[in-house]
Amino acid sequence: MKTIGIDMMGGDFAPLEAVKGVSAFLQTHTPEVHLLLIGEEGKIKAEMDHNPLPESAYTIIPATQVIEMHEHPTKALKEKPQSSISIGFHLLASGKCDAFISAGNTGAMMVGSLFSIKTIEGVIRPTIGAYMPREDGNLGLLVDVGLNADCKPELLNQFALLGSLFAEHILKINSPRVGLVNLGAEEGKGNLLIQATFPLLKNNSQLNFVGNIEGRDILINKADVMVCDGFTGNVVLKLAESVYDMVIRRNINDVHFNRFNFETYGGVPVLGVAKPVIIGHGISTAIAFKNMILTACDMLNTDLTGKIKECFAPGSTANSIKS
Amino acid sequence: MKTIGIDMMGGDFAPLEAVKGVSAFLQTHTPEVHLLLIGEEGKIKAEMDHNPLPESAYTIIPATQVIEMHEHPTKALKEKPQSSISIGFHLLASGKCDAFISAGNTGAMMVGSLFSIKTIEGVIRPTIGAYMPREDGNLGLLVDVGLNADCKPELLNQFALLGSLFAEHILKINSPRVGLVNLGAEEGKGNLLIQATFPLLKNNSQLNFVGNIEGRDILINKADVMVCDGFTGNVVLKLAESVYDMVIRRNINDVHFNRFNFETYGGVPVLGVAKPVIIGHGISTAIAFKNMILTACDMLNTDLTGKIKECFAPGSTANSIKS
Repeated sequence: MKTIGIDMMGGDFAPLEAVKGVSAFLQTHTPEVHLLLIGEEGKIKAEMDHNPLPESAYTIIPATQVIEMHEHPTKALKEKPQSSISIGFHLLASGKCDAFISAGNTGAMMVGSLFSIKTIEGVIRPTIGAYMPREDGNLGLLVDVGLNADCKPELLNQFALLGSLFAEHILKINSPRVGLVNLGAEEGKGNLLIQATFPLLKNNSQLNFVGNIEGRDILINKADVMVCDGFTGNVVLKLAESVYDMVIRRNINDVHFNRFNFETYGGVPVLGVAKPVIIGHGISTAIAFKNMILTACDMLNTDLTGKIKECFAPGSTANSIKS
Repeated sequence: MKTIGIDMMGGDFAPLEAVKGVSAFLQTHTPEVHLLLIGEEGKIKAEMDHNPLPESAYTIIPATQVIEMHEHPTKALKEKPQSSISIGFHLLASGKCDAFISAGNTGAMMVGSLFSIKTIEGVIRPTIGAYMPREDGNLGLLVDVGLNADCKPELLNQFALLGSLFAEHILKINSPRVGLVNLGAEEGKGNLLIQATFPLLKNNSQLNFVGNIEGRDILINKADVMVCDGFTGNVVLKLAESVYDMVIRRNINDVHFNRFNFETYGGVPVLGVAKPVIIGHGISTAIAFKNMILTACDMLNTDLTGKIKECFAPGSTANSIKS
């Protein structure tokens, strides 16, 4: 049985929403995994009074420290070894859990993903994707959304493949269409990075590359995986999030715009690291925690990490294209 | 009396909407300018049957060619010297008009702005800004939105000042707040370009620099002038445009989201060139043309170009910071 570590202290409503999320997960899904609930034992147990969990499904792993949202990631991870995030990565790195979820300090989760656990062989840098809602009810994946502010073409080529594998196995999209985010649709357009990346994607036989996509195409169903550097992706993601804030402020109730509530997606996967890591939104609610656990289960059940390893192994197509 | 050249053949509904726009302008504003209507004389006159214009207010400048929207900018400008855009830039460069407006091929307008007329001394590269609507009814300015895909820090520093002067004199914002588009709010965050740009803006005494702004701040009232490279800005602009398309598709009628109809703003100014140039949206309607003429009038009346010249002149503060 696989084991998933959950940072119970992460997010603005910790540990209440985390406990409720775990409870919701356990109510609707036969526990195929064992959950490690990492955090302040007293606080977690207090919330369990109102949201009882079946004892066999979880183990509480005490963590006496919490990395707050505003703390400097590297400094906090170093100075708070007893924090729920530090302990979570320690459990993951030492093989005591198979996946790790947190809605805590995003920077600390990124730094932890990069330095606490191994990057898959052949992967230059891990990446973080974010879902983009479509009017047909499906989701697209935008990679990278902030882990890699400065990118080289080879990196974007790898993001495309990592995103493609996630879209295929987790979003269940057959032969996902990969688009390159650009300022124009025609080949030859773009900044130097994108101009140099285009031929790499075009010649990558492991991708279903559909060419450039523009800003106007990101929210519509033009590509399933949308590749960009982490600077552009981060600006796009936060802009899309702000559209939802505006929709709420303006009392607009629309089934599609409601899906711009990024909290409900339950976090974004870190792709390219040796074990599944999911970084949640700071304002994660119970449903977000439930969805994060489900995504972690999917990543474990489909052995996404194993599939990424195969694709990036020395001698594989991806690797030969890279070199 | 100043003279404004208008490309009557640009935009998806040419020359009908252009004629209607000129008519609307002349009906509500005492003509303080003379208009040069550049395009196919027969077609323009045919539209005038239904939208008569006072004869003293305009002169038709015949142009027998049209640069279509899909044409390659440089190639088209070279091969179609009798096109309305080529003739417009020729009139501007030779001093026969004081400003030029077109809703035609954006690329051709950019190339024309860069190469047909002079860049103001001290300005490294001209830039194009776009309006961003705010819920309070005001507008922010995002620069650059596509003219400069790859930028250096000095360039962004200049965009900040050019945008600031436009916001002050045309948008009538006192001491406009300048924000640097970034993936985080804290100083030190960002890609290499933005990290190197931050101190330049911070130390530029001609700017009211308010620090980094994130994607979520672009559509709210956090900064009046939002500075980014043209790649990021173009993706942001087109994404914002697509939000309006979605709002329309979903039959949402909201006073603020209706202001995401970028067609109504009537085009974006090219800043840093020796004479006012305004590039319209391809789907420009009569109101867009009217607004473009009004913006050109504002730019002429306030002598924005002269004010930019002063700020960038050798020995000025901007120039001393630059060197």
